[in-house]
Order: sequence, then structure tokens, then C-alpha cells
Amino acid sequence: MLSEAELVYVKDTLPFWEELSGQDQKELADAMKLQEFKAGTWLHRGDQDCSGLFLLKSGQIRTYFISETGREITLYRLFERDVCIMTASCMMKNITFEVHIEVEKDTQAYLLPMTIVSGMSDTLLPVKSFLNELMASRFSDVMWVMEQVLFTSFDKRLANFLMEQIAIEDSLTLHITQEKIASHLGSAREVVTRMLKYFQQEGVVRLFRGGIKVIDEEQLYRMTDPNSYRHRPS
Amino acid sequence: MLSEAELVYVKDTLPFWEELSGQDQKELADAMKLQEFKAGTWLHRGDQDCSGLFLLKSGQIRTYFISETGREITLYRLFERDVCIMTASCMMKNITFEVHIEVEKDTQAYLLPMTIVSGMSDTLLPVKSFLNELMASRFSDVMWVMEQVLFTSFDKRLANFLMEQIAIEDSLTLHITQEKIASHLGSAREVVTRMLKYFQQEGVVRLFRGGIKVIDEEQLYRMTDPNSYRHRPS
Repeated sequence: MLSEAELVYVKDTLPFWEELSGQDQKELADAMKLQEFKAGTWLHRGDQDCSGLFLLKSGQIRTYFISETGREITLYRLFERDVCIMTASCMMKNITFEVHIEVEKDTQAYLLPMTIVSGMSDTLLPVKSFLNELMASRFSDVMWVMEQVLFTSFDKRLANFLMEQIAIEDSLTLHITQEKIASHLGSAREVVTRMLKYFQQEGVVRLFRGGIKVIDEEQLYRMTDPNSYRHRPS
Repeated sequence: MLSEAELVYVKDTLPFWEELSGQDQKELADAMKLQEFKAGTWLHRGDQDCSGLFLLKSGQIRTYFISETGREITLYRLFERDVCIMTASCMMKNITFEVHIEVEKDTQAYLLPMTIVSGMSDTLLPVKSFLNELMASRFSDVMWVMEQVLFTSFDKRLANFLMEQIAIEDSLTLHITQEKIASHLGSAREVVTRMLKYFQQEGVVRLFRGGIKVIDEEQLYRMTDPNSYRHRPS
């Protein structure tokens, strides 16, 4: 059951809300609840759960793919006002891959439970359309990553990633391990270490235990691939 | 306007057909037409066209992504009874990437024109659901490719590709250039050449001008990654 203020937020971020009947709106509002997740936990792990859609009120999560040998690559990250669809992937026919969803920062999210989302998407065109558009967005995100992996050299991808982190953290000091960067980029730690050392040698960053300080942001930006640089949060 | 026999084929391959009203069925049948495409032509090139959905009656097409520098990777191929959704990508909100679709073998396909598909998907839940499931399939295909690119070594990927070609061509003699194989796998020709020479040295294939003869299929199969080997046409 949502409060009046929460309802305003939800209406504002779910484009199909206005197209629902009063009864459907009430049913959905009654079923939704705000949940809290601590950084470092998981919203979703492969086929182990299928809670429904999460509408983020605050925080940050990342959806990633993990290989059989344990290597990872980040597919996309979600922030305030984003809706996470892969936590409802079990209801989507023909989705044959599995992802993991990690909470990167403490997150508050409204859960639209599976049963109600599934029922509504089976009977209500606006809900189905919304899911369709959401899937198209994530599909596009993944295509962007694929393009990067295939056709952008690793130095540029690393520069892109660091610029993205600066935007997300709103800071030039990034507390992130080289292991973690490798997981984001689908690479090996050794490859990240080698490239960061080169960046350091060029005077662009300074490495410290547990993180990276960007000391020449302009030069770092010049090292990105401006065509493929995705400046996520605005 | 479709003949009686064509109508049977269409009904059989479009799962939403039975859920349409008689009038919608008639409207769709009247609008559909069989088109023919020669091998080596394109069904779709980036943002240059948006014809609608194509339901393949015969033939083979490939959907691929092309980088700014002209390098390619095959995302998936479609055969008889498959429906091509990316020729209608302009109507899909949030699809921000562009693909090319090449006719690999002479192809016959029913076009469901854009105007009618777009109108029906805006008003009819079964049509929207069908598009949703179709997109989920293609999304899954792309995730499969991404997994391969990231986490499968190139020798295994090449073996996978050759096994797939054997299945498609129903022949151990493959008329395909090394340049073309590189385009399928998102790689460079030199890399393909080097690996094929290694395969030849191992007695698995024999290279000839314009193609490859597989001489030890069992050994080739052992060189694939059986977990990720996608045996497409059955």
C-alpha cells in the first residue's frame, strides 16, 4: 500500500499508469511495496528468483552476465526512476539467457510483484507495450556493449568506463578495484592493470590501494571513443 | 491477397492468427504479399528502410551488425517459418541500434506491411505479445553471440561456426570465403586464415580456393564448445 507521495512518484515514472482503469490502478498500488537492498547484495541471481519488476526510487544496480568459468561483464546499470525488467524474466517467453543483478549502492525500489505484472501484461495492452519498450531498451544497451567489446580497443573502453564512473560518483577519486573493473568490462585483471599503469605513466591517473584518482580528466576524455562514450546519469 | 494454400502456411506460422477477429484476419491476409529476394541482396540496411515483418517461406537471411570501420558480426540467421522483426525496427520504441539484413540464399517471404503491423500492434494484444516474444528471441540470440565473443576461445568459435554451416548446407564441402567467415565471427580475415591453417594441419579440414572441405567431422565436433554449440536448423 503506497502513501500519497509515493503514488505521485510511481505515476510519474510508469508511463502506462494513466492508461489503467481506476480499479487496476488500485490493485497495482495495493500490491506494490517499497523494499530496501544493501550494497553488495543481489536483486536477482540467474534462475534462482523471479520477483517481478523493480522501480528504483534511489540507489544503483548493475545487471551482468557471468560465464561458466566465472568471468563477468556488465550489461547495463540502473538508477533512480529506472525499471528493472530482468527480475521478471521468468514470465518472458523466449528469454533463454540468465543474468545476475547486483546492488552497487544501497537501493530503495518498489516491487511490482510477479503475479500482478504477469496478469496485467497478459490482459492489458498498455502494460504489454511498456514491457516491450523496456525490453527494447535493454536489448539496445546490450548491443552497445557488444559493439564496444568487438570494435573498440581496450584503452578506449577503459577510458569510457572511467569517465562513466566519474559521472556516476560525481568525483575524480574512484574507489574501485582493478578486479571489479575487469568484471565490468568482461576482461582479465592483468589486462586492466597493464592499461591503468600506462594511463598512470601518461599522467592521466594516479593509482592507489583500492582505487584510482583521475588527475587529468580532459586528457582522459580525449582517450575515450567519443562516438561510443555513454554518459549515463545526467 | 493470399491463396488458400498460402493462408494455411501463414496461419500455421503466426501464432496470433487464431486470436484475431475474422475482420482482422481478412485485413491482414489482403495486405500480405509474397516477395522474392535474390541471394546477395539486402532486406534491410540500417535506417534506410522499414518495410514491416517478413515471414520466410523459403531461403536464408542473416542479420548482422556493422561497425563504423566496416567490420561485421552475424547476430543470427533466419530460415523457413522464421519471422524477421528487425525490418520493422522503426516502429519499436527504444531500439537504438541498427542492423543490416542480407539475403544469403534466394528467399521467398511474405511481407506484413509496416502500416498494418504497426496499427495492429497498437490495438491488439495478441499481436503485441507476438512481437514481444519475437524480440525476446532475438535478444537471446544476441546474448548467445556476446557470450561466445567474450568467453569462448576463437578455435572453438570457428569449429562451432563450421559445424553450423555443415548443418545449414547439409554438406561437408563449404563454399565460403575466409573473408566471409571473418564477417560472421566479428573477426579479421588474417585470424581466420591462421586458425584454418591450423585446422588443416591437424587433418580436420582441407582448404581450397573459395572454400573448405571438412574431412574429419568427428574431430571438428570435438573441437567445438559443446555447451555453446548452436545447431540451428533441424
